[in-house]
Amino acid sequence: MYKAKAYSAASATSALASDIITRRDLSEHDVQIEILFCGICHSDLHSVRNEWSNMMPTVYPIVAGHEMVGRVTQVGSGVTKYKKDDLVGVGCMVESDGTCLYCKDGFEQFCPNLTLTYNSPDKYIGGVTYGGYSDSIVVNERFVLRVPSNLELAGVAPLLCAGITTYSPLRHWGVTKGKKVGVVGLGGLGHMGVKFAHAFGAQVVVFTTSPDKTEDALRLGADEVVVSRHADEMEKHAGSFDFILDTVSANHDINAYLNLLRLDGNITLVGAPSNPLQVSAFSLIMGRHSLSGSNIGGIAETQEMLDFCGEHNITADVEVIPIQKVNEAYERLLKSDVKYRFCIDMASLKSE
Amino acid sequence: MYKAKAYSAASATSALASDIITRRDLSEHDVQIEILFCGICHSDLHSVRNEWSNMMPTVYPIVAGHEMVGRVTQVGSGVTKYKKDDLVGVGCMVESDGTCLYCKDGFEQFCPNLTLTYNSPDKYIGGVTYGGYSDSIVVNERFVLRVPSNLELAGVAPLLCAGITTYSPLRHWGVTKGKKVGVVGLGGLGHMGVKFAHAFGAQVVVFTTSPDKTEDALRLGADEVVVSRHADEMEKHAGSFDFILDTVSANHDINAYLNLLRLDGNITLVGAPSNPLQVSAFSLIMGRHSLSGSNIGGIAETQEMLDFCGEHNITADVEVIPIQKVNEAYERLLKSDVKYRFCIDMASLKSE
Repeated sequence: MYKAKAYSAASATSALASDIITRRDLSEHDVQIEILFCGICHSDLHSVRNEWSNMMPTVYPIVAGHEMVGRVTQVGSGVTKYKKDDLVGVGCMVESDGTCLYCKDGFEQFCPNLTLTYNSPDKYIGGVTYGGYSDSIVVNERFVLRVPSNLELAGVAPLLCAGITTYSPLRHWGVTKGKKVGVVGLGGLGHMGVKFAHAFGAQVVVFTTSPDKTEDALRLGADEVVVSRHADEMEKHAGSFDFILDTVSANHDINAYLNLLRLDGNITLVGAPSNPLQVSAFSLIMGRHSLSGSNIGGIAETQEMLDFCGEHNITADVEVIPIQKVNEAYERLLKSDVKYRFCIDMASLKSE
Repeated sequence: MYKAKAYSAASATSALASDIITRRDLSEHDVQIEILFCGICHSDLHSVRNEWSNMMPTVYPIVAGHEMVGRVTQVGSGVTKYKKDDLVGVGCMVESDGTCLYCKDGFEQFCPNLTLTYNSPDKYIGGVTYGGYSDSIVVNERFVLRVPSNLELAGVAPLLCAGITTYSPLRHWGVTKGKKVGVVGLGGLGHMGVKFAHAFGAQVVVFTTSPDKTEDALRLGADEVVVSRHADEMEKHAGSFDFILDTVSANHDINAYLNLLRLDGNITLVGAPSNPLQVSAFSLIMGRHSLSGSNIGGIAETQEMLDFCGEHNITADVEVIPIQKVNEAYERLLKSDVKYRFCIDMASLKSE
């Protein structure tokens, strides 16, 4: 075992602060990575503050972060996919059983024995897993992704969660040229949804409550922006969408969007409002609409997404911060005051 | 125009009673049908009592009934599909624009200019359309279905609504041999869902609140019956269903069923609870589940369903009544006291 620098929170009400954590020594199939950048996902904030205590109570101290890119520093004797100095990424998962039906089909994200990147039981050294707000991590090569060399690394980090979370449902529901696609919400997830839907050739409409996001939405690849509070603007699009990606985790009226779908249209939720959604059966029955959800993506699909980003020069729009500003970033995140993802430059950890 | 015998309601609080109505003369593409049997759908009761006043206020007098079988008595000069004495059926629709994208793709049920079998504006003779609680009707041949000659006619009538409403989503969501399928509720719709899912070769599980329906569910083709109020019985099936057909129009907990789906599993609603469904986003996100709705089926698919029923000897389980008992039948319907559909023998109308 070895020591690594990290930023951790000691309790639900503590600020994140410099800490020294223990990482495991390399096993046969492990890759050791020097973390260069780590995105800040809203899930980090929920976990750090124990806001998901019902489902996943937080064990403290917590080291959050599941959007990391870095460089391989060492590999175990059995590692075949990576070698020292390779550019790699790690997302939300670091282990799964590999034997269940989900794993066998490439859907590790649904494995009943999944180990999340942070706050999951650590089967190697006990305690819980520690995430990417750190200078180093050891991960089984099965959960390490190859990062294209042509992309700006800070903008790659958020692809590991925000990227795959939006890429996967857009692919699954067949978004291609000729399809009309809505993206609800223009935050960390939404702005990636716009970039991907545009790159897939779809006609992209962004729904937002903030008219001042219009210009940015168009720059990101939207063809049109609808202010969702304007009923007349919504009405114009009734019955016309093939697919709508709903990235909003605040409570909102889903029926207003279901009514915008055409025959067999689908809305997929990637945000998870805390209250149950109020769904009118008639909004589903008329037009055979469907409402579904999606959770990140499997490892193979995550690699496919990264490769696609390399080919199409797609990265997240990030505001790079030193780790010393992480607490301030959390407060700004609560006000959606970021375009569109904070990304920690881990070089800043060297001075701690 | 000619006179036809019918049973109508004069107001939302009136009993159905004998009446004489006007039917149009045959146009070029019309078929005149002597109605032999007409099923009683719960929609009839809702419409007669103006319980859907928000969406479709009832115009009185109303002649309900959209599950009819009968014999052709006369055809218009341009009719090519039918001739005198053919056995035919008519369902929930009697006209559509034929030009919209829905109609062109065979989804007449979603046509914005659809004419329903009753309580829709009648573009031929004004007023509203009159349904199947009558001895005769005139319908454009496009909306007339051919009835296989080997089936017992009283049991065929409910196929025109309850049959196609369950057949269509089971087909659309790919229910075949090897699939595990749930049917929620064992009423007029549910019992047809069980028969079709069984005929398609699926493993069929019926969910009911009434343990005393077990024997009947097994007789209809279920492989297993789960009493939905028993949490332990539900838990045993977690994550195992490919598809669940939800026929319940009473308010109920949809998340309990979403959690029974496997990866990419779908629940389709064909009943429409009056209150919005409370849907947990997590129930959709985990396992990429989807929730959708379905509304009868198109004309071509309705014919396919009837042909399938002829080949597999499938009819609805009916309790045949004379039309003089229709008010009593409505009261029993409210208590779900019917196995599984009332069907009016229209010969009883001759004595009125």
